[in-house]
Amino acid sequence: MKDTFGQSISITLAGESHGFGIVAILSGMAPGIPVDEDFIAAQLTKRRPSGAISTSRQEADEFEILSGVFGGFTTGTAIAILIPNKNTISKDYSELASTARPGHADYSAQCKYHGFQDYRGGGHFSGRITAGIVAAGAICLSALEKKGIKIGTHIAECAGIRDRKFKNTEEDIDSLNEKLFAVLDDESGKKMEEAILAAKSEGDSVGGILETAVAGVPAGIGEPYFDSIESRLAHMLFSIPAVKGVEFGSGFDMAKMRGSEANDSFFVDENGKISTKTNHNGGINGGISNGCDITFRCAIKPTPSVSKEQETVDFIKNENKNLSIKGRHDPAIIHRARVVADSAAAIVLCDILAQRYGTDWLR
Amino acid sequence: MKDTFGQSISITLAGESHGFGIVAILSGMAPGIPVDEDFIAAQLTKRRPSGAISTSRQEADEFEILSGVFGGFTTGTAIAILIPNKNTISKDYSELASTARPGHADYSAQCKYHGFQDYRGGGHFSGRITAGIVAAGAICLSALEKKGIKIGTHIAECAGIRDRKFKNTEEDIDSLNEKLFAVLDDESGKKMEEAILAAKSEGDSVGGILETAVAGVPAGIGEPYFDSIESRLAHMLFSIPAVKGVEFGSGFDMAKMRGSEANDSFFVDENGKISTKTNHNGGINGGISNGCDITFRCAIKPTPSVSKEQETVDFIKNENKNLSIKGRHDPAIIHRARVVADSAAAIVLCDILAQRYGTDWLR
Amino acid sequence: MKDTFGQSISITLAGESHGFGIVAILSGMAPGIPVDEDFIAAQLTKRRPSGAISTSRQEADEFEILSGVFGGFTTGTAIAILIPNKNTISKDYSELASTARPGHADYSAQCKYHGFQDYRGGGHFSGRITAGIVAAGAICLSALEKKGIKIGTHIAECAGIRDRKFKNTEEDIDSLNEKLFAVLDDESGKKMEEAILAAKSEGDSVGGILETAVAGVPAGIGEPYFDSIESRLAHMLFSIPAVKGVEFGSGFDMAKMRGSEANDSFFVDENGKISTKTNHNGGINGGISNGCDITFRCAIKPTPSVSKEQETVDFIKNENKNLSIKGRHDPAIIHRARVVADSAAAIVLCDILAQRYGTDWLR
Amino acid sequence: MKDTFGQSISITLAGESHGFGIVAILSGMAPGIPVDEDFIAAQLTKRRPSGAISTSRQEADEFEILSGVFGGFTTGTAIAILIPNKNTISKDYSELASTARPGHADYSAQCKYHGFQDYRGGGHFSGRITAGIVAAGAICLSALEKKGIKIGTHIAECAGIRDRKFKNTEEDIDSLNEKLFAVLDDESGKKMEEAILAAKSEGDSVGGILETAVAGVPAGIGEPYFDSIESRLAHMLFSIPAVKGVEFGSGFDMAKMRGSEANDSFFVDENGKISTKTNHNGGINGGISNGCDITFRCAIKPTPSVSKEQETVDFIKNENKNLSIKGRHDPAIIHRARVVADSAAAIVLCDILAQRYGTDWLR
Repeated sequence: MKDTFGQSISITLAGESHGFGIVAILSGMAPGIPVDEDFIAAQLTKRRPSGAISTSRQEADEFEILSGVFGGFTTGTAIAILIPNKNTISKDYSELASTARPGHADYSAQCKYHGFQDYRGGGHFSGRITAGIVAAGAICLSALEKKGIKIGTHIAECAGIRDRKFKNTEEDIDSLNEKLFAVLDDESGKKMEEAILAAKSEGDSVGGILETAVAGVPAGIGEPYFDSIESRLAHMLFSIPAVKGVEFGSGFDMAKMRGSEANDSFFVDENGKISTKTNHNGGINGGISNGCDITFRCAIKPTPSVSKEQETVDFIKNENKNLSIKGRHDPAIIHRARVVADSAAAIVLCDILAQRYGTDWLR
Repeated sequence: MKDTFGQSISITLAGESHGFGIVAILSGMAPGIPVDEDFIAAQLTKRRPSGAISTSRQEADEFEILSGVFGGFTTGTAIAILIPNKNTISKDYSELASTARPGHADYSAQCKYHGFQDYRGGGHFSGRITAGIVAAGAICLSALEKKGIKIGTHIAECAGIRDRKFKNTEEDIDSLNEKLFAVLDDESGKKMEEAILAAKSEGDSVGGILETAVAGVPAGIGEPYFDSIESRLAHMLFSIPAVKGVEFGSGFDMAKMRGSEANDSFFVDENGKISTKTNHNGGINGGISNGCDITFRCAIKPTPSVSKEQETVDFIKNENKNLSIKGRHDPAIIHRARVVADSAAAIVLCDILAQRYGTDWLR
Repeated sequence: MKDTFGQSISITLAGESHGFGIVAILSGMAPGIPVDEDFIAAQLTKRRPSGAISTSRQEADEFEILSGVFGGFTTGTAIAILIPNKNTISKDYSELASTARPGHADYSAQCKYHGFQDYRGGGHFSGRITAGIVAAGAICLSALEKKGIKIGTHIAECAGIRDRKFKNTEEDIDSLNEKLFAVLDDESGKKMEEAILAAKSEGDSVGGILETAVAGVPAGIGEPYFDSIESRLAHMLFSIPAVKGVEFGSGFDMAKMRGSEANDSFFVDENGKISTKTNHNGGINGGISNGCDITFRCAIKPTPSVSKEQETVDFIKNENKNLSIKGRHDPAIIHRARVVADSAAAIVLCDILAQRYGTDWLR
Repeated sequence: MKDTFGQSISITLAGESHGFGIVAILSGMAPGIPVDEDFIAAQLTKRRPSGAISTSRQEADEFEILSGVFGGFTTGTAIAILIPNKNTISKDYSELASTARPGHADYSAQCKYHGFQDYRGGGHFSGRITAGIVAAGAICLSALEKKGIKIGTHIAECAGIRDRKFKNTEEDIDSLNEKLFAVLDDESGKKMEEAILAAKSEGDSVGGILETAVAGVPAGIGEPYFDSIESRLAHMLFSIPAVKGVEFGSGFDMAKMRGSEANDSFFVDENGKISTKTNHNGGINGGISNGCDITFRCAIKPTPSVSKEQETVDFIKNENKNLSIKGRHDPAIIHRARVVADSAAAIVLCDILAQRYGTDWLR
């Protein structure tokens, strides 16, 4: 199922950067969920380039819900959303038919598609396709919110500068969801923006780490082994272009811990609820939620399109060449990617919850 | 598909630590692949506890191929493998019916299965179930080897001690595949073993990082988005108990790089083959192989079973209690987990290759 | 995967009768397949109502390929096709919000979607959604034709009148594919059309049987058990509204045969090719093709929308009522459904062939 | 997923007629369902050959539950069941390595597996593999029964002799489930048995039609299009060897009806429940249950193994030959297949119900 992911609830994606537009089909959502088009638009705005730290390509990201919504509510059948492309300047990209931009998929796509791929602006490999994840994810985020489940992502690190950690998760999530540049500590955020602009001025780009928290997930969802929450979230998260690492809870830091430290001690709190004192396991034991916040981090590689000259190849002539990428590019995409992480997580969690509690649970 | 993973080639897993045994069904393998039972046995030996650095539970790991192999070759139909449990001492575990061992799945399983889970020795959550992945994976590893694709994993880090990096990948893989404690630098390996024993002497445990290299994968396999090589490998790898992080290529280190550094420059080598000068992207661009080594790393958390006293809860009585885990336990499982990583990767790659080139390609 | 079907090649469907339009996403097609928009249009014309024997609702069925085609060829990535709705008269249908039309899905949809379903014109249950199958199937049919595989369907029976059987399969398929009312014997066809008009004049409708032949499928594709050709074709065919029975080869007639008659004797023909003397098994043994024509038949129930008064219920008031369906309706849909059968079969066979021979085989 | 079928609840099958045994893994069943091994044994007995009308191969069909059951209840994790082969006489079958038995899969298997298939006794294509469906299905049938859902199948037709139709569905189902030769009218049953013996005495075999009723399914389960109840049931039913046709409700007979006849009129009964006066649609409208009995019929072809001499080919020498099949064979399998139909339907319905109402619903 190459372009579809999910079981009880799934998403199917199609589209290219410079074609007609992006299509996402969200399948399996419960009937009767209110669909707030303003919220979808607001989420798309978070992904859209804005200001000096993004590409100057400006997409209005208007969208059209083609099916599955009637009278303002989900019908329970497939929801198709179209996000047309508008501001495309294809002449920027003509060299790409034969040039492998380092860090991009041009060469691997050539090996797979034999030259038939749409090479304009990255074609199907463009980060723009993730707008479909954001639009579909907005519906899932709304449904989860009504069930007391909140998702928020911050830029935990960018260009080596760190944001503070989550403290009061729900409050932090609320504050993040109001920001375009999603940091918990705005001072750190300013430094990150300066670092992005510094890289831009040198014709270069930066990466970073996104950290996501999900509050309110009941204990006992997920599965051992292949349908573990980690497996399904990671599957989806690694679908997002530029994600090269995913870790849950303390992740790679757990490699250095002893068991006595890494084990999260359980306790019965004052309300009789079982919880853990630490959360190194990111709310998941044996693939199944334990009732604590689900937390994960995604490594975002620096934007591969840099204007600095790079060595590469012409894969048609099979010869070396130098390349200086022109056109409108992002010196960083991490601030735009965070809403994709939220949306991706929301889709996966809706799927897992619908499997556990049935297709009507979310309504 | 809770207990099955894969598309053209899939694995289905069943079993518990203290039940009859472990069953793995490998489905979709090409017909005519020689099945070397000695190699399967040798792979199972790598996962089996051995020496002072492992649990003293000794399983012979005898296995029986129940179907799908005829006259020494795969038939092309489902291969069922049974690994019976033999050395089980259930009295060790009776407290687990109501006690949440920190770091284990006891409590999340209770929330999901309402007390019907087999709690003996971790039941279905036991790492022992991965013996099924190893047995099935051995058949996949053999098939890949015949097609020039080699997989090897080393303990890149354990208890904070680092192994050297891969140099000559194919040679390194060959040397790793002959070792029980898989390090590239045996001096580092000795220090790791000492650190494991030190933790053991304190009733504690350690974790680490596994690094895997896959050499010989042709360029152009995989898919963009949901069926990216990263998505499918990560899905499988996060199925392995104790894996809490997965990164490809330079992974989380890419978060600190600039684009000009992280981008792997392409060049045409002396044989006219296109390759890259660095491999920060781990052989994958846009979800699709680029012909370079595929590399990834898994964070392995420290074994949760430690004999040190821990605070926890009785989830039936809903009250706090202290716990000191008795019985036979591993002070580390990273040296046993590496063959699981090899096997998991082999199954996923066979699946991706069979999809790309057809079900007969592997024979 | 509610709205997606297929493995290596899949289709995802969305849309409602009176919404924005129908969307089909065809995923996994090989790159480099020429896409003939005129052929897609011609196939949609076959499904479109025409003449007195169909509804007077006239849809231009203009379509837009939104992605996956570049420079006239498939790119290898997801192909999204949009067929906008244009000639919708929603006032015809307002009573349907609470009335269960006999033979329709109104009541079962109410039980599933709790009143949130789009009830206008059958909404997502409308046969109009199959336009998406036809558009996507056209691309598959073209790809199969280039590989020497032809598919054709005739109206084997309508209102009790029978068409002649297939004789020279390939010639017959060619002749069928040029007709709007697909019969092998035009005399029988005329009688069928008369019977349809007779039913229409009485405010009633008729059904029939579609018979499909697939010529040129190589021996050895398909799988035993769950992925048998029969299982996968039937799964898809029963997705088509109005199909209530599917049989392969001699199907239900085999129930009356003895083994010595039903068994298709193999023989080596003058060219050394193994074939069978009869084809009661419809080209499939043990779920796998044997090189003979694959043949199957679909029972199409009479159109449920009839203007004759019917007894039924108001499912909101929970009371009995009488209903006389007004508006534009088909006295038969079998002549329109046959291109859906062709298209559905083409999608499934492309999927099975791509699994067997790899994703590039069809190009 | 070649050997696995189902979504929330799935079955995986492996095994060959003359190998070690048959393995079925039932995945996704709710925890806490009592597992009655006597009932499983009784169900296997219904499938086992018995008396003169069956093959003289006698299998005890002892089985071993390898996992997923603890203390007499399902745990909620994968249930693996092993049915070892015991009474195998492999010398009977040695000719099959190169001879295509008409009506069997020998030749299509050769084209797919290139000679590596296990040809002994039909290998993986043997009807014996359906013992796995029966064992897994027994657990599903028990779970459904507890929820008020009953499934029963009768031999509606055998060798041209018809059984009476279902009258009082629940009573009829109860009576069928106590019989080895499942007919509603025992007089008809006797005639069928005589016809089977007559065919046997001539070295021939007979087929028939199985009719299944499912009582108690709530309205509103299933999906439109690809996950319609018809699609999913038919997918599974066509997995059963010898099934060549599947129809729901009045099926192929609807092809001859007018709409006014075929439409099932809804009415509100004395208890305020909405029901239909007829059930031509087999309890399913638009792929979704309407609360009436779900009914379907399967065409079972005559057993292909007949001792009468048949013309066929040696597919290694590529030459014509005559064949007279020796050994122990069934003159009919329809009386043994009916429990497979019940079991297959039970697995699919559990899956659909678990999707609709969540994984805990069945417990």
